[in-house]
Amino acid sequence: MTAPFADERSLMSAIAALGRDVGAPHRARDDLARVVWAGLVEPGDGIAGMLIDTLGAQEALRVAQCARPGAAPPPAIDLSPRDWADALARWRPRLASASDPGNALRVAAARSIRLVMPGDADWPAPLDDLGHHRPVCLWVRGDSRRLGGDGNPAVAIVGARAATGYGEHVAGELAADLAGRGLTVVSGGAYGIDGTAHRAALAVGGTTIAVMAGGVDRAYPAGHTALFDEIAATGVVISEVPCGGSPTKWRFLSRNRLIAALTGATVVVEAGVRSGSLNTANHAATLGRPIGAVPGPITSPSSAGCHRLLREYDARCITDARDIVELLDPGTLFDMGDGASADSAGVRPRTDDLMRVRDALSTRSRRDVDDVARRSGMSLAEVETRLGLLLIAGEVDRGPDGWLLGATGTG
Amino acid sequence: MTAPFADERSLMSAIAALGRDVGAPHRARDDLARVVWAGLVEPGDGIAGMLIDTLGAQEALRVAQCARPGAAPPPAIDLSPRDWADALARWRPRLASASDPGNALRVAAARSIRLVMPGDADWPAPLDDLGHHRPVCLWVRGDSRRLGGDGNPAVAIVGARAATGYGEHVAGELAADLAGRGLTVVSGGAYGIDGTAHRAALAVGGTTIAVMAGGVDRAYPAGHTALFDEIAATGVVISEVPCGGSPTKWRFLSRNRLIAALTGATVVVEAGVRSGSLNTANHAATLGRPIGAVPGPITSPSSAGCHRLLREYDARCITDARDIVELLDPGTLFDMGDGASADSAGVRPRTDDLMRVRDALSTRSRRDVDDVARRSGMSLAEVETRLGLLLIAGEVDRGPDGWLLGATGTG
Repeated sequence: MTAPFADERSLMSAIAALGRDVGAPHRARDDLARVVWAGLVEPGDGIAGMLIDTLGAQEALRVAQCARPGAAPPPAIDLSPRDWADALARWRPRLASASDPGNALRVAAARSIRLVMPGDADWPAPLDDLGHHRPVCLWVRGDSRRLGGDGNPAVAIVGARAATGYGEHVAGELAADLAGRGLTVVSGGAYGIDGTAHRAALAVGGTTIAVMAGGVDRAYPAGHTALFDEIAATGVVISEVPCGGSPTKWRFLSRNRLIAALTGATVVVEAGVRSGSLNTANHAATLGRPIGAVPGPITSPSSAGCHRLLREYDARCITDARDIVELLDPGTLFDMGDGASADSAGVRPRTDDLMRVRDALSTRSRRDVDDVARRSGMSLAEVETRLGLLLIAGEVDRGPDGWLLGATGTG
Repeated sequence: MTAPFADERSLMSAIAALGRDVGAPHRARDDLARVVWAGLVEPGDGIAGMLIDTLGAQEALRVAQCARPGAAPPPAIDLSPRDWADALARWRPRLASASDPGNALRVAAARSIRLVMPGDADWPAPLDDLGHHRPVCLWVRGDSRRLGGDGNPAVAIVGARAATGYGEHVAGELAADLAGRGLTVVSGGAYGIDGTAHRAALAVGGTTIAVMAGGVDRAYPAGHTALFDEIAATGVVISEVPCGGSPTKWRFLSRNRLIAALTGATVVVEAGVRSGSLNTANHAATLGRPIGAVPGPITSPSSAGCHRLLREYDARCITDARDIVELLDPGTLFDMGDGASADSAGVRPRTDDLMRVRDALSTRSRRDVDDVARRSGMSLAEVETRLGLLLIAGEVDRGPDGWLLGATGTG
């Protein structure tokens, strides 16, 4: 039988160096077990997720480490013997190496990289919509409080590496406009559209999040080393892959589900028919999140993927940042004046939620987020997102003493 | 009381000179009454249409000529006194001049222009979907048998006068491809997208129809004089406005309903937000005909109208001619191989009709259109359109002895 952790004492001090609270031993061992799981599985392993969500990370790890080949699935898990055998078979080769995540933790500490776990205050709640496919933990460069977007809605602006001048121009305009309105711009840090979106958000002093396919200690592409430093200075660079992990093809695809899940809408600016950004849009659609596509010349192969999204996925045709804000909450924020814009299919109606937040606010006395959450019967995260939308729409005012209903012209 | 016609004898010989059969006096007088109506009303006058459809053109004309101001509406017509008074008031100023259409008829005869009336073999049945707003008659330059598109489906390719090089390139490619597949390309004869679509259809030896806002004897724009001559040589140039009539702003708008009604789908290639082609698309949507829009750069004002159609009218995103053919009959002609393309909203499903036509054909013996219509229980016009679609799809073969089910590779 393998020990759950190669050297628990040294690993404990390693995660303490990352700012994890090791005062409560059970919780600290749970953190450590999640770090081991992060090295043991490939991103999005739903059986690992189910095991962890059901048994807890430590017990799940013990089960995975001790299970003999051919053993029945744990009784608490609803799983076929075949799926269980497959999962054990794919975890087995890494069991020994994963039990010693010391190197990843030391690299992280040296680079001021933090760990954020499900249940942490900074854990981005929208990732939980991935169910058992959510990451076991996140490795974060930058201020992890930005992960929640400071209560502002987040939008994914993604697209092809092989972008044209047109695509980069549009990505820059849209990202700058959105970031300037206070929205968080999320992208994948790649050359082309992604990089342009990050840069434009930074240029207007906005918040941007880069989601990496490999470890956040590695700049991939290397040409974006300085860009990632800049992003981490005001926003965050994150990954579910431990430090040192390389960005494999599979990890790019599974990374895309995080971009889709973190955001209220995914907008593809330019994409060939085989662009990975279509995969991100597909994840968004699967999650019930609205998708937008920027059209371009039909003679440009770099727009062919966007046109496919318009035609086959009922993506919203995006021509400016306003279209994107509307995608986040159609028909409620901006009166488009023609009555024809609120029927975009595939968009989750959240009008009721906005109404509940409005009802929980007062026009006379300021209320803090906790109070609004209590009055509306909604979660803190839900309330924060809606307050952000209302702020952008000029319907509320934010001050040091809390939130006030009614446009003041200064918000 | 005004005489219905200024000089019946001379007018009779004038319409005889246009090839109308004057052997049956009642029918000839009915033709003549329609010609008078064409000069009396502006295009799309629904009250005139209702009166004519209910009482017949001659009796309707008599009623219009004899009605005193303030008189009640004819008992057979379901009309408010106010609407009737308004109609009489707008017809009155032209009653005298319209009763002598001799000049228009003489110009038509001199230019070999023909008249086509509802009920004629060449009358394009799809116009009847306009109800009381259908034209009272059509003035036709060219072989009026082309009006029915020889049983092939017709597509409207329209767009802005102020087209870009991109728009004209795309219009040309699409029109040439469609005309090359045997579809009739319908447009408005204007500079820019319209003209390019006509020219491209002609270049591949296809059939094209230009629908004019003024009389077909006038080339508008004058710069397209040679183009209209070319169109009339193999296709047709048509108008509901009598010869000599000028193309007013209103007539451009009402002309657009004919482009929409004549065709199975309307595709806007390039359009600013105020382009008249959006009006054509709107007519198509009102008629339940599918609309398509070609996207372009969002930085191009010439594509802004197309993007609006994509966003607000659920227009289909068109990137090639195949998309347009699919628009005519989604999901049946071409297996797109991904199963995701058949759900475009707003498209009338006509799959059943194609099936009925297939069922009415034989793989062994050829059948003529009359026979297929009888067996399928569909109208001749309906059968002709479906046979055209099946021909394009390579599912049937056309020969001098009729139609055969099964691709022969030569169709």
